[in-house]
Amino acid sequence: MEELFLIGIGTGNPDHLTLQAIKAMRQADLILIPKKGPDKSDLAGLRHAMLAEHAPRVAVAEFDMPKRDVSTGYLAGVEAWHDAIATEWVAAIARAGAGREFSQKIRRVALLVWGDPSLYDSTLRIAARLAPQPKVTVIPAVTSVQVLTAGHAIPVNEVGAPFTVTTGRQLRDHGWPEGIGTLVVMLDGECSFLTLPPAGVHIWWGAYVGMAEEVLAQGPLAEMAATIPPLRERLRAEHGWIMDIYVLRRKG
Amino acid sequence: MEELFLIGIGTGNPDHLTLQAIKAMRQADLILIPKKGPDKSDLAGLRHAMLAEHAPRVAVAEFDMPKRDVSTGYLAGVEAWHDAIATEWVAAIARAGAGREFSQKIRRVALLVWGDPSLYDSTLRIAARLAPQPKVTVIPAVTSVQVLTAGHAIPVNEVGAPFTVTTGRQLRDHGWPEGIGTLVVMLDGECSFLTLPPAGVHIWWGAYVGMAEEVLAQGPLAEMAATIPPLRERLRAEHGWIMDIYVLRRKG
Ligand SMILES: C[S@@+](CC[C@H](N)C(=O)[O-])C[C@H]1O[C@@H](n2cnc3c(N)ncnc32)[C@H](O)[C@@H]1O
Ligand SMILES: C[S@@+](CC[C@H](N)C(=O)[O-])C[C@H]1O[C@@H](n2cnc3c(N)ncnc32)[C@H](O)[C@@H]1O
Repeated sequence: MEELFLIGIGTGNPDHLTLQAIKAMRQADLILIPKKGPDKSDLAGLRHAMLAEHAPRVAVAEFDMPKRDVSTGYLAGVEAWHDAIATEWVAAIARAGAGREFSQKIRRVALLVWGDPSLYDSTLRIAARLAPQPKVTVIPAVTSVQVLTAGHAIPVNEVGAPFTVTTGRQLRDHGWPEGIGTLVVMLDGECSFLTLPPAGVHIWWGAYVGMAEEVLAQGPLAEMAATIPPLRERLRAEHGWIMDIYVLRRKG
Repeated sequence: MEELFLIGIGTGNPDHLTLQAIKAMRQADLILIPKKGPDKSDLAGLRHAMLAEHAPRVAVAEFDMPKRDVSTGYLAGVEAWHDAIATEWVAAIARAGAGREFSQKIRRVALLVWGDPSLYDSTLRIAARLAPQPKVTVIPAVTSVQVLTAGHAIPVNEVGAPFTVTTGRQLRDHGWPEGIGTLVVMLDGECSFLTLPPAGVHIWWGAYVGMAEEVLAQGPLAEMAATIPPLRERLRAEHGWIMDIYVLRRKG
């Protein structure tokens, strides 16, 4: 493998694909896709549908997604997990390449990455483990941040003001960052906005943003703190999985 | 006008367009484009080329981009400027609609917005001035943040850590925000990274990201603080305009 393409695909709407992403898919010699697991949220079906529509002649190889060991410490567990994923990629490429003619050698491999590959995603860190290191080319895509703010038709920033993108855990452990009026919170399995004093805070929340299942809600945090958690629970039960993201803005 | 589409077009690469953006362009009854001014950076040519390629049958109306009054206070000047732009939109739509049959009435109007419409962009705030208020639909796009990090093939965040998106002015006036390891700096005409103590800071910088003119540079801020400003000056002189953006990351 000479070049690895990490192709951002957006957040679940097949029309989030850019023309650049489609061209990159078509130029690949092989596209790696994680095997569909029992978990509905792996959304392997979306990736297969995108390839069937836009790059039907490109070879596809499935790889097993290893399980993360949660018995060791968090960071050590993640490191070992990334090593194991890189090993699965290499094995899948070797299987796909076995017996190919020289003229059909696998030079360009692509992965389809949820949202944008730069944002809270480990694919770049896994790719850094490959030896010899291929050239890594990233194709940017819309992130869940843009899709959320588009859904609500709001700017993410106040005029000329900064904003911070953070995680549910950070918000719980460290509270609202000093000197920042707007927060975007991702990777939050626990409605961490409940840990904040709600006065003067507005929330714009979204689940499954960009997808057919999309649900949006917004309002003063003082009110929404009572309505979003049960709504989120109901949606999670209904679909079997949930992904959500929100913007918090503080007056003044 | 019943519905206004704010369509994100990415940062200058025509292949940043999403399939969703192309579909929205094609469904418009009229697309508003700012008239090409003497300023090379208005890039009206890119918008015309996108429309010629993807929506050649859709009507296009040009509007005059009013000048911002810099003699009044900054905020008052911006407010008046946004009012004036909304007035130009309405006038352009009225001119385009004059004499149309009822069956060809202009119901859906679209604007093509640089990058993503939610990020440091005033189109949503201008649209809020329209009376009666049409339904506003935002089509998300890649931002210059994603295009910069894709160019450098880096994640924007450290694992599980927050990052702050801010402006050159904020960085100059308020310094590095407390408790944040990564900054993305936009709207910086003055190389504001020069105001920071450079020890332990890495910079990933890009000008014209995603465009044919793209130039990237990265390294320890202690070194790059000497090389980026003259490079930026040379590029600005060569092209007659510049847009740049950078990520700063602090160790520890
Ligand atoms: C591992 S991160 C990946 C982010 C992705 N790379 C992006 O650009 O959006 C997963 C988190 O992104 C957010 N997210 C991604 N897709 C989403 C969607 N369709 N709806 C709501 N949140 C989403 C959620 O906060 C989720 O916990
Ligand atoms: C008015 S803001 C618009 C941002 C845009 N809505 C986006 O999503 O990127 C303009 C700033 O965005 C950044 N920017 C936009 N396009 C860029 C490009 N092609 N190259 C470098 N910076 C860019 C620069 O920091 C510039 O000062």
